[in-house]
Amino acid sequence: MDFSSKLLENAVDQVSQLPGIGKRTALRLVLHLLRQPKEQSADLAQAILNLRMEVRYCKSCHNISDTELCEICASPKRNKETVCVVEDIRDVMAIENTGQYTGLYHVLGGKISPMDGVGPQELTIGSLVDKVKAGEVQEVIFALSSTMEGDTTNFYIYKQLEPYQVKTSAIARGISVGDELEYADEVTLGRSIMNRVPFESSLKG
Amino acid sequence: MDFSSKLLENAVDQVSQLPGIGKRTALRLVLHLLRQPKEQSADLAQAILNLRMEVRYCKSCHNISDTELCEICASPKRNKETVCVVEDIRDVMAIENTGQYTGLYHVLGGKISPMDGVGPQELTIGSLVDKVKAGEVQEVIFALSSTMEGDTTNFYIYKQLEPYQVKTSAIARGISVGDELEYADEVTLGRSIMNRVPFESSLKG
Repeated sequence: MDFSSKLLENAVDQVSQLPGIGKRTALRLVLHLLRQPKEQSADLAQAILNLRMEVRYCKSCHNISDTELCEICASPKRNKETVCVVEDIRDVMAIENTGQYTGLYHVLGGKISPMDGVGPQELTIGSLVDKVKAGEVQEVIFALSSTMEGDTTNFYIYKQLEPYQVKTSAIARGISVGDELEYADEVTLGRSIMNRVPFESSLKG
Repeated sequence: MDFSSKLLENAVDQVSQLPGIGKRTALRLVLHLLRQPKEQSADLAQAILNLRMEVRYCKSCHNISDTELCEICASPKRNKETVCVVEDIRDVMAIENTGQYTGLYHVLGGKISPMDGVGPQELTIGSLVDKVKAGEVQEVIFALSSTMEGDTTNFYIYKQLEPYQVKTSAIARGISVGDELEYADEVTLGRSIMNRVPFESSLKG
């Protein structure tokens, strides 16, 4: 694309480095900003800069948090014997929205993915092992997405935790509530038969 | 959404003000930036800020340009008697890509849209009328999109130009090259029959 302006070209280049945003979309977004008051662009730039430069993570669960210990880890109401292992803050938000979980989280910050150069050292696995080693944790729940990277990561952590005889579990996979059986994929349907639950507990929630 | 961090919430709020970007997408983009080096966020913020604060427009055609007169207006190779009226720089880039047009452009900066608070005064229509009044322009080509706003804008400009007896034309609407007739909408097909061209000229390009 020939932009007739280096300023415009540079802005489009930078915006199009965001995932899922191509040059055309970037140009559309940037032209939108040009039609808005200058303050909007200034606020946007400042918000991005502030977050990236000043972001802090909870020293216990590694979730994004403005305080040293996040609200969940600091809450006396949460059950500190259960730790749910998730990839990032989106998973924490999703599980919190269910209102069904009262334990703590451990945010890995990603999944093991040699293709993307993410090894176990890039994630907060060591900190999880230390937590289990310290003794208070009774159960670790694996809640990573069931992709190859997710399964690899789960298994790696599972192996690391083996010496400490902590209970491990994985979130249930099955047919979504309200979904028709005929449209479910075979793997999910197979798992939901294998991992069937007592009828009484299927009536809850 | 409960973000557990004001910094994160603020960044997501700002990013989600961009058109077509909801809170979920904004969160995904912002988390991506957190996984990248700080420099990427700094460069992105700076590029947006630089563009918005320092953007300049060609004093003749009003296209975005780093120089007082854009490359197209300044080029001695361009035919200064023909002016093509477009909405924004994307249209200029699209027409330039065809390699079929050697005249100049006039970038309106939008379309008349009372619903969005855009009246003729917000656009560069006065400057176009002045250009025609000055006498060098022989033909004005309307190339706005054929929406209600586009048609309204075309007609408004057409009325403004009427006293100066300049030739006016509109880009041809019809079936796309390579498209099947049976899938074309009726309005387009109707126009392409009404505005049929001599067979010889259909063989070109």
